Amino acid sequence: MTPQEAYRWLLEHSRETACLASFGKLAGWDQATYTPKKGHAHRAQMQAALAKVLHQRATDPRIGEMLAVVEGSDWLGAPESVEAVNVREWRRAYDLQTKVPERLAVELAQATSEGEAIWQEARPKNDWVGFKPALKKIFGLTRELAEALGYQEEPYDALLDQYEPGATARQLEPVFAQLRQATVRLLERLEGSARKPNTAILRRFFPRAAQEAFGLEVLATLGFDLEAGRLDVVAHPFMQGIGPGDVRLTTRYDEGYFNTGFFSIVHEMGHGLYGQGLLPEHFGTPMGTEISLGIHESQSRTWENLVGRSLGFWRHFWPRAQEYFESFRDVRLEDFHFAINAVEPSLIRIEADEVTYNLHILIRYEIELALLRGDLSLDEAPEAWDAKYQAYLGIKAPEIKDGLMQDVHWSAGLIGYFPTYTLGNLYAAQFFAKAEQELGGLEAQFEQGEFAPLLNWTREKIHHQGSRYWPRDLLRHVTGEDLNPQYLVEYLTRKYTALYRV
Amino acid sequence: MTPQEAYRWLLEHSRETACLASFGKLAGWDQATYTPKKGHAHRAQMQAALAKVLHQRATDPRIGEMLAVVEGSDWLGAPESVEAVNVREWRRAYDLQTKVPERLAVELAQATSEGEAIWQEARPKNDWVGFKPALKKIFGLTRELAEALGYQEEPYDALLDQYEPGATARQLEPVFAQLRQATVRLLERLEGSARKPNTAILRRFFPRAAQEAFGLEVLATLGFDLEAGRLDVVAHPFMQGIGPGDVRLTTRYDEGYFNTGFFSIVHEMGHGLYGQGLLPEHFGTPMGTEISLGIHESQSRTWENLVGRSLGFWRHFWPRAQEYFESFRDVRLEDFHFAINAVEPSLIRIEADEVTYNLHILIRYEIELALLRGDLSLDEAPEAWDAKYQAYLGIKAPEIKDGLMQDVHWSAGLIGYFPTYTLGNLYAAQFFAKAEQELGGLEAQFEQGEFAPLLNWTREKIHHQGSRYWPRDLLRHVTGEDLNPQYLVEYLTRKYTALYRV
Repeated sequence: MTPQEAYRWLLEHSRETACLASFGKLAGWDQATYTPKKGHAHRAQMQAALAKVLHQRATDPRIGEMLAVVEGSDWLGAPESVEAVNVREWRRAYDLQTKVPERLAVELAQATSEGEAIWQEARPKNDWVGFKPALKKIFGLTRELAEALGYQEEPYDALLDQYEPGATARQLEPVFAQLRQATVRLLERLEGSARKPNTAILRRFFPRAAQEAFGLEVLATLGFDLEAGRLDVVAHPFMQGIGPGDVRLTTRYDEGYFNTGFFSIVHEMGHGLYGQGLLPEHFGTPMGTEISLGIHESQSRTWENLVGRSLGFWRHFWPRAQEYFESFRDVRLEDFHFAINAVEPSLIRIEADEVTYNLHILIRYEIELALLRGDLSLDEAPEAWDAKYQAYLGIKAPEIKDGLMQDVHWSAGLIGYFPTYTLGNLYAAQFFAKAEQELGGLEAQFEQGEFAPLLNWTREKIHHQGSRYWPRDLLRHVTGEDLNPQYLVEYLTRKYTALYRV
Repeated sequence: MTPQEAYRWLLEHSRETACLASFGKLAGWDQATYTPKKGHAHRAQMQAALAKVLHQRATDPRIGEMLAVVEGSDWLGAPESVEAVNVREWRRAYDLQTKVPERLAVELAQATSEGEAIWQEARPKNDWVGFKPALKKIFGLTRELAEALGYQEEPYDALLDQYEPGATARQLEPVFAQLRQATVRLLERLEGSARKPNTAILRRFFPRAAQEAFGLEVLATLGFDLEAGRLDVVAHPFMQGIGPGDVRLTTRYDEGYFNTGFFSIVHEMGHGLYGQGLLPEHFGTPMGTEISLGIHESQSRTWENLVGRSLGFWRHFWPRAQEYFESFRDVRLEDFHFAINAVEPSLIRIEADEVTYNLHILIRYEIELALLRGDLSLDEAPEAWDAKYQAYLGIKAPEIKDGLMQDVHWSAGLIGYFPTYTLGNLYAAQFFAKAEQELGGLEAQFEQGEFAPLLNWTREKIHHQGSRYWPRDLLRHVTGEDLNPQYLVEYLTRKYTALYRV
């Protein structure tokens, strides 16, 4: 067999697997949107049957044989050629899949499935004692997983690498430390300001139909292709790319709070633009696949915050918003803009503002890392959590359901996942600074309703690259620089010291 | 390997295959409802990838090996035991799947895929010359398919048997002849009546939201479980069962015509009740699967016509209909009931009334049978079509798009399929007569809003049987009699001579 033939086999296998995986994505979207109440049990059985097929395909020994034929062959071309990238990532995925013993995979699946159910029940009751054994088991199995996956420096890296290829705790440490110090300092300055936004204007009445119509208008204006996507309503918003031409956004509406619906639409749209920007000719191969959760989050955060919370953006959309919402007719643009950028330490991560959000993430990261390293025991974790909230945000959760038990992630086995949120914010600021440098006057463009220059820039620089570069390499390739937290720090400082006049 | 072990393997294999097939059903439903315009190309690729997996699973040689172990073993029990039924039907499906050479399957898939596309384009242009070669090819390949599948008496039986196990042209002949003669005679009598319904009352304004709300109320009252199903809007209504607890109805609304939305809801609900009535513990096996298209259609026709067009039904729902629809406020129940039962020969099958509908089917059946037998050439078919419409219905299509080219079926390779529509009507009338005999006073029950007795009767007698009995055996088992067209003839004659007072 020639390298070309082996490559052709891998290509076919990869594409067919992706087509089958699309069914799981569609069915997952349907579970959150339109599955009837009594259909969920069967849906779980469907997903289990598909997972089995996909696992068999992903661990098919022929993949290893074909990779062996094609790897290192002259035919492959430069390391950044389409073929070399695909082979590199197929190898990475195959190794990840085949390194985990079936016994461990099954135990983890069971433990996290049970863990999530226990968390669902224990959290509202503040039942830490009931939840702890499940969490202990999951951390134990996850440590085994890290050993199975392998790492160079420490177990945590193996976990992180699943979501953010190439990232390590050692790399993150100085970056996160710098961000933490600067954020805590900025927060202190903002809290010292006498100027406070009037957030009550966001808590008036916003009819659902108007929210949807306005949301769809914004989506279309920003460049989301509604003929290649949808917007539906769910309990917990997400974006689901099914495949080329089919990228689905979801949101939820709160008629008593403007931010809930609007910013989740724009956030998910950022994810969706990445999905719509992947090259369809590479569908089902690494070159047509998003590279990491952090890069994904950078796209959602760009549109939600850097664009969607900018004054230029609202200079353009404010007249339309005032037409859609009677509640805004007596509100001044500047007051609205300040209100949607209110900064206030709060207990709940998913409700946090742009400044404090990363502190929530850093706390989780520091705790999961310490747990993995054995520097902290699970018994000590709630106290460590509270101490960090006190130190970074100056607040403390009165109940553990709003403390260490607030997120589903750990109970679902998502350990090493939290950092990708803050990496997303860091990448976003660094990309945006580069786009500003290359395109010039972005906010003035937003004010004119011109979003295509920024979108096209991200298309070319990021979306079209698929998995060609690992995140840090992509960053270097696009911005000419390694990950540098100063971009986010400067953006936040500039924006918020101006708003709060400190 | 013991027979039990072989059976267990077959059971697992069958269930997993069904779970995977559920994805195709869900994705098909989604294509008709919510897939964005640009997502259809990828959806076709998804379905092709899944079809490949399902075909591999259905023709897995291990099925043959396992069947050989279990077939004829004492362990199986009586022919109507769950295990014996499953083994019988697994064998039937395996033989059907493995008898068709791959070359023929591929050619048929291509020819029908192209054929449908050509039909879509040629029909509006009355382009018989452009369509004929595609149809000729499909009939040729279908004749090959019949040879591959095998038959006892004639090729047509092999095709029919795919949709209606055990049915043959020889069986149908006397039944259909009797129905045709009686229907033509009845139609002549009705056409001689001076009394005509005022169908204009159905062509007033019926707001879409009211149609949907009324439809949902009717569904709930009749016993369709909306927590185990849905109702959505599509261009061409259908029912899609995804699996236990998830049975999806679709409809389309015409605000200018009451019948379009309402009767498609009740028709699809009849299919859906069959789906909801299958025993969930047998999901993914023949015992939990509908036995035939004809039996399926008998359920939809029962609720659409025997129930939904009865006076008792409307005595119950008329006050609600008048509340929902202002357009009905000045209409008398009797006039409405006569209008929804108007009989009039028309060119288009899917718009035909209860009396003339079967004549449309018989014409198609007679022509496809003659084509298969070689008694008629494709060149002669349009003329034969027109002659039969003239003879049975007294009308002739001015254009071939409303004549021989009106249905998609033949271009999609669905030859031997049409008879199942009329078999459905025949079964429905015969089942209903038996239910009336056993339960007594059905229409009086409908008038009281009591639909549970009839539904429970069909659940027990038909739905819960899954594929235990082939259609004719099921009929004999439930009604104690072979297929007898007199039930339908008598029902139609009684109902329509009364309405038309002839």
